[in-house]
Amino acid sequence: MINKFVMPEVIFGRGSLRQVGESCLRLGAKKVLIVSDPGVIEAGWLEQVIESCRGTGLLYACFQEITTNPKDYEAEKGAAFYKEQECDAIIGIGGGSVIDIAKAVAILATNGGRISDYEGVDRIEVPLPPLVMAGTTAGSGSEVSQFSVIVNTVSKKKMTIVSKSLVPDIAIIDPETLATKSAHLTASTGLDVLTHAIEAFVSIAATPMTDVHAKNAIKLVAENLRPSVASKLNSEAKENMAMASLQAGLAFSNAILGAVHAMSHSIGGRYPMLHGDVNAVLLPIVMEFNLLAAPRKFQEIAALLGENIEGLSASEAGRKAIEYVKELSLDIGAPQRLSEMGFEEEMIGAISELALNDACMITNPRDITASDVEALLRKAL
Amino acid sequence: MINKFVMPEVIFGRGSLRQVGESCLRLGAKKVLIVSDPGVIEAGWLEQVIESCRGTGLLYACFQEITTNPKDYEAEKGAAFYKEQECDAIIGIGGGSVIDIAKAVAILATNGGRISDYEGVDRIEVPLPPLVMAGTTAGSGSEVSQFSVIVNTVSKKKMTIVSKSLVPDIAIIDPETLATKSAHLTASTGLDVLTHAIEAFVSIAATPMTDVHAKNAIKLVAENLRPSVASKLNSEAKENMAMASLQAGLAFSNAILGAVHAMSHSIGGRYPMLHGDVNAVLLPIVMEFNLLAAPRKFQEIAALLGENIEGLSASEAGRKAIEYVKELSLDIGAPQRLSEMGFEEEMIGAISELALNDACMITNPRDITASDVEALLRKAL
Repeated sequence: MINKFVMPEVIFGRGSLRQVGESCLRLGAKKVLIVSDPGVIEAGWLEQVIESCRGTGLLYACFQEITTNPKDYEAEKGAAFYKEQECDAIIGIGGGSVIDIAKAVAILATNGGRISDYEGVDRIEVPLPPLVMAGTTAGSGSEVSQFSVIVNTVSKKKMTIVSKSLVPDIAIIDPETLATKSAHLTASTGLDVLTHAIEAFVSIAATPMTDVHAKNAIKLVAENLRPSVASKLNSEAKENMAMASLQAGLAFSNAILGAVHAMSHSIGGRYPMLHGDVNAVLLPIVMEFNLLAAPRKFQEIAALLGENIEGLSASEAGRKAIEYVKELSLDIGAPQRLSEMGFEEEMIGAISELALNDACMITNPRDITASDVEALLRKAL
Repeated sequence: MINKFVMPEVIFGRGSLRQVGESCLRLGAKKVLIVSDPGVIEAGWLEQVIESCRGTGLLYACFQEITTNPKDYEAEKGAAFYKEQECDAIIGIGGGSVIDIAKAVAILATNGGRISDYEGVDRIEVPLPPLVMAGTTAGSGSEVSQFSVIVNTVSKKKMTIVSKSLVPDIAIIDPETLATKSAHLTASTGLDVLTHAIEAFVSIAATPMTDVHAKNAIKLVAENLRPSVASKLNSEAKENMAMASLQAGLAFSNAILGAVHAMSHSIGGRYPMLHGDVNAVLLPIVMEFNLLAAPRKFQEIAALLGENIEGLSASEAGRKAIEYVKELSLDIGAPQRLSEMGFEEEMIGAISELALNDACMITNPRDITASDVEALLRKAL
């Protein structure tokens, strides 16, 4: 089997955000569009990015009209602004929503059209402008991935856009930016990281290169997510979670994901829930469903999570991994049911249909039907 | 600490060599210079590359005037040919020597001057033409690294050129190409892989990202080098060694190396020895010297090599790693002394001086003086 692995140049470490201007300069930029959102501005990170651009003599324009679960019209607005301002490169500074919009703006900037034209795999034809993406949440992995997930406000569905062109030129991961996250956001994004790592590891498109990263990410989450939620000041745990997020991002960018993400994309297009919260509820339920397809992989996950699996069969060990995930989720206060976040039972049919057609469903290790998805959603209700 | 990690897009797997033409096309190439050597031609790999280029309508020109431990004038000749033929991209197909020359040709093609102008770190200013590098030996890691090592025929020294510009755009690793290697070359390049992984792991520039790759490479070598030397037909072992080479390459490209490579570069500039053979002799001797600097890292190496280290102190465990390397080297018939390859005692002073100034010495974990290097060379004699 031939497999491909692609990733951006990565600059990782405390204080690395200050290199954002210099990074753009190195890529030949003269005037950058800086994409962020109100939370990033409040935390002071946009200011630091602007300072870094000024320090290197770069011109810039700022765009921050972005909401959680970012929308098609936001990308289109950003692209119009990019052209109006005559920018030639893009910086994204923020969580997954910001970076996904920054990528979508980049697509439209050089390819034109509507963002829905690019839904699916490999639909981008013209190269994008230089992209420097700085992730601030240690969750989405979007700063290193070939994905952008944007809500189609007409069909009320998250569109998954997959293309090597979406891999940024440079990804900046500065663990200092994690100190401003709330405990809830730390828990939510941390469980998103775990979901990325586990789905990538059991994906039918997993390779030895993606496995290395997925396995390390699982181990790092097991060791660092609890302490990271517990204290804003535990910078070691936060740095390790940033590394976990990076490696989980590298794994899923190249091995793709599975049923958890297919479902949570479909739910996130309809409800303004936190992506990580939805994944947190779905992950153990989908693991139970997928156990049959890859007992040895789930056995390995249990070992990576630190479970004692001596003398257990692969399936028994795999079940320990599922129990571990449930316990972790309870410990850090993640939501346990979709209904507590406002999900309505009558939407199950519609969401199942959307989920079945999501690009992430293709790599789920177990065959799945509409009634399977409905049953899983009912369990998660 | 801020650290950077950079790698090419990787295409890995049996049959991937056939994607070389398409890869160049994707990078915008119209006419490629194909760099190879007589061994590659004899094995039939150049033919396959030419076929792939023809299949995609690419024009091409071939350059193969290359010797083991490639020389400055070969790069200069290649660059003149590149210009004469009006090429706009470069394919390297072969072992480390071929790929290092292909990179050096690329430097001269767009930057001009002599190749010695670029010795050291970050001396390349103008971007290089698109580079697609296909490694055929599972050893050098040059197809993914930011290194090119070229012999200066005036000073009789290997020049180490380090620059992010040298990271190819696309690296192709086709384990099928390993089936034509002799047992001796398999042993020699395999021990080079182990040296890359161990030196990168104990390097003072190691990072969590490079550690992941270095550790996996060490494990893969321990499990696959012996069977790979034993049989040309053991394709599973060869595929795993190709993966080990890739990961060791990613590790050392970003964490740099140490005293083994500093010395073997200096020796290789003077003597036409196989790089892996020189490393094989020096590795356990340098490990002994470096043990003091990083006992815990050597302890981890022992565990990765499969040694039982229960109840041992870090230093005791580290010594087991050293014994393991000696035994492995004996088992697969690697040379045990420099003198059996023609090294002369009276060269020790001159070689030590060169080695102290090699770029790889900077990241060796233990401080080292001229008399230390001399003592190590004497041990290796």
